Amino acid sequence: MDGSAGRVVEGVAETSGGKMVLLVADGLGGLPHPETGMTEGETAMTPNLDALVASGVSGLHIPIQPGVTPGSGPAHLGLFGYDPVRYTIGRGVLEALGIDFDLRHGDVAVRMNFATVDDAGNIVDRRAGRISTEKCIELTEKLSAIRLPGMELFVRPVKGHRAVLVVRGPGLAGGLNDTDPQETGVPPVPLRADDKGQEKTVEVLNAFLGAAMELLRDQPQANALTMRGIASLSKPPSFQSRFKASAVAIAAYPMYRGVAGLVGMTVMPQAADTADLVRMLRQNYEGFDFFFVHFKETDSTGEDGDFDAKVAATEAFDELVGQVRDVGPDVLVVTGDHSTPSALASHSWHPVPIALCAKSARVDKVQRFGESPMLAGGLGMIRATDILPLMLAHAGRLTKFGA
Amino acid sequence: MDGSAGRVVEGVAETSGGKMVLLVADGLGGLPHPETGMTEGETAMTPNLDALVASGVSGLHIPIQPGVTPGSGPAHLGLFGYDPVRYTIGRGVLEALGIDFDLRHGDVAVRMNFATVDDAGNIVDRRAGRISTEKCIELTEKLSAIRLPGMELFVRPVKGHRAVLVVRGPGLAGGLNDTDPQETGVPPVPLRADDKGQEKTVEVLNAFLGAAMELLRDQPQANALTMRGIASLSKPPSFQSRFKASAVAIAAYPMYRGVAGLVGMTVMPQAADTADLVRMLRQNYEGFDFFFVHFKETDSTGEDGDFDAKVAATEAFDELVGQVRDVGPDVLVVTGDHSTPSALASHSWHPVPIALCAKSARVDKVQRFGESPMLAGGLGMIRATDILPLMLAHAGRLTKFGA
Repeated sequence: MDGSAGRVVEGVAETSGGKMVLLVADGLGGLPHPETGMTEGETAMTPNLDALVASGVSGLHIPIQPGVTPGSGPAHLGLFGYDPVRYTIGRGVLEALGIDFDLRHGDVAVRMNFATVDDAGNIVDRRAGRISTEKCIELTEKLSAIRLPGMELFVRPVKGHRAVLVVRGPGLAGGLNDTDPQETGVPPVPLRADDKGQEKTVEVLNAFLGAAMELLRDQPQANALTMRGIASLSKPPSFQSRFKASAVAIAAYPMYRGVAGLVGMTVMPQAADTADLVRMLRQNYEGFDFFFVHFKETDSTGEDGDFDAKVAATEAFDELVGQVRDVGPDVLVVTGDHSTPSALASHSWHPVPIALCAKSARVDKVQRFGESPMLAGGLGMIRATDILPLMLAHAGRLTKFGA
Repeated sequence: MDGSAGRVVEGVAETSGGKMVLLVADGLGGLPHPETGMTEGETAMTPNLDALVASGVSGLHIPIQPGVTPGSGPAHLGLFGYDPVRYTIGRGVLEALGIDFDLRHGDVAVRMNFATVDDAGNIVDRRAGRISTEKCIELTEKLSAIRLPGMELFVRPVKGHRAVLVVRGPGLAGGLNDTDPQETGVPPVPLRADDKGQEKTVEVLNAFLGAAMELLRDQPQANALTMRGIASLSKPPSFQSRFKASAVAIAAYPMYRGVAGLVGMTVMPQAADTADLVRMLRQNYEGFDFFFVHFKETDSTGEDGDFDAKVAATEAFDELVGQVRDVGPDVLVVTGDHSTPSALASHSWHPVPIALCAKSARVDKVQRFGESPMLAGGLGMIRATDILPLMLAHAGRLTKFGA
């Protein structure tokens, strides 16, 4: 939703109405298998998805805009009814959310890479020989000893040569340049303050880098650090304040829980498996209006480029669909955050199947789940940001616009 | 149309071209009957609509944005090519238009409710015991004696306890708070000036309220007034100036004639019945380029929640479609302003069927009128504000954009 579309919905949202479940299969959309002409979702046996599509209204949604492949952050913001172009999430922030770090408004988060430099200070290995995660943990613990006046510092390991730095304190800003030069044989790029508001942050990060270089001096491989995606956390207006509905996020992976937390959803502890997702949904069903439930494996199998594994993941998701439907929400939307075709082994820009079930749905003629049959659905081709308003409407939570 | 889309169309509009008829069945879209799976429009026998759809191009339109249910004012503004979010119509203004009051630019219109207050000034009945319309007429005549220096005042009855006040004079503003507290046992809410520009209006309305309370003092029931929807009339740029086509509105109900008048259309006197609509269209056919013809009963039967009555109204509308088509416009669009499914007994957000007939139409394969078949139409799913530019294009009234 752009600014004015968002304001329209906020202006007509009411505090009472039905219960809504947004069930997201990450990377749900796919591409046809060259031999069968059927996508992963069309190949899978999906009795529950088929029944859902047959009894509801379906279509496809475009996550950002035609041709634009979203990262997980913007794709989910769109599903939550936030314009993902207006509310950007910096890479550092997403990295911090991805390790379940409790970011606060105003924090600056930085993705750091351990690197190897020679005596002249030129980078000889941008990934420090791909050190182990154990080594990364050891080094971040060492760096956690660094103290800077008036600032709180948090150094956290991610994986291999990757780590996160969060700086908390007054007067910080994001949007700084990366220090990773993206090539070897040259030194790290110095931090620049492109505007006055960034000067203090440059000073703090340079002080941290100076202290870190001292501590890493004797490391055989990881004797330097580069910084990327330096971003401050600017929380968008909360879901509850915008849409007048209390919301809870139920997911196994930190990043999705992090993005949901960013818009003020209550975030459940990490789910262990899909049975846990359903258990948490049932346990919290009385306490909330809106439920975001996230299923990961359709994305990870697509990222692996494994068509058959994605078919199997879609079939596992189909079982979850049946279990969630049994809970009996007034409005149930099942969709993906983006496509992850196994043919591309990556996220893609292709439209994503969506099905909506509710009493007030204008049921269409589509009988089968899949990118191809759902093209004829009654929702047509919508934007991701249209989904939340439609859910609110079907839940009876939007009054008339104008007299 | 948003600002930039509107400017594009204005920039390429020409003064000559074919004749265009926009025939609107209020609340045309519906929802499937639970037993047959067919909507009101699909259930109705509609030979003329079917012939129209078969020989033209069809689709569905979204009045405001997905999920948003429009009031009559914004829904019609959209059909007339005006962004209904940008050009809002206040409730007081719509109420004045609804009684055929000739509002002028800068007027402030107020919806008033007669109420009962006790000796302490607390409201005991927000609707003054639902006094009769006769009583309302008597009281508004009494209040018409009020004079305020430098201002013209118009007090008009609406129905029961409802009345309208229009204030005309320099320096007035709308957007004030409602004085109706929405509960009993408390006094009316005082008027506030939230910004400097509203101070004079507060002063004028308080003076009116003071004088009115004197005149109503001895009434057993209607001894007070509350104010709602205080709005100034800000006329959008005229239809003729934007689209270079002269336009006339033919309708039976004041509100629709009022909204058409707001955008500068010539407004015909109230039509008595559908035969009158056709007669007025024929009589004025030489004099105008664009004809807005409004049919009401598809909405009122839907609002009543009466599926069968809406089917019958759709069949009556179908006859009108045949008669209007016989007039032979170069471009004929038949659609609704919004959906009013009898299952919901209210306006709704669901997309609205639209059919366009013109020599330059890219005729599609749709053969039957209805929400479901028209999903496959050549127009696809469009926004209401896209309709007017399409009509102008098919009438040969838009030149090329750019070289």
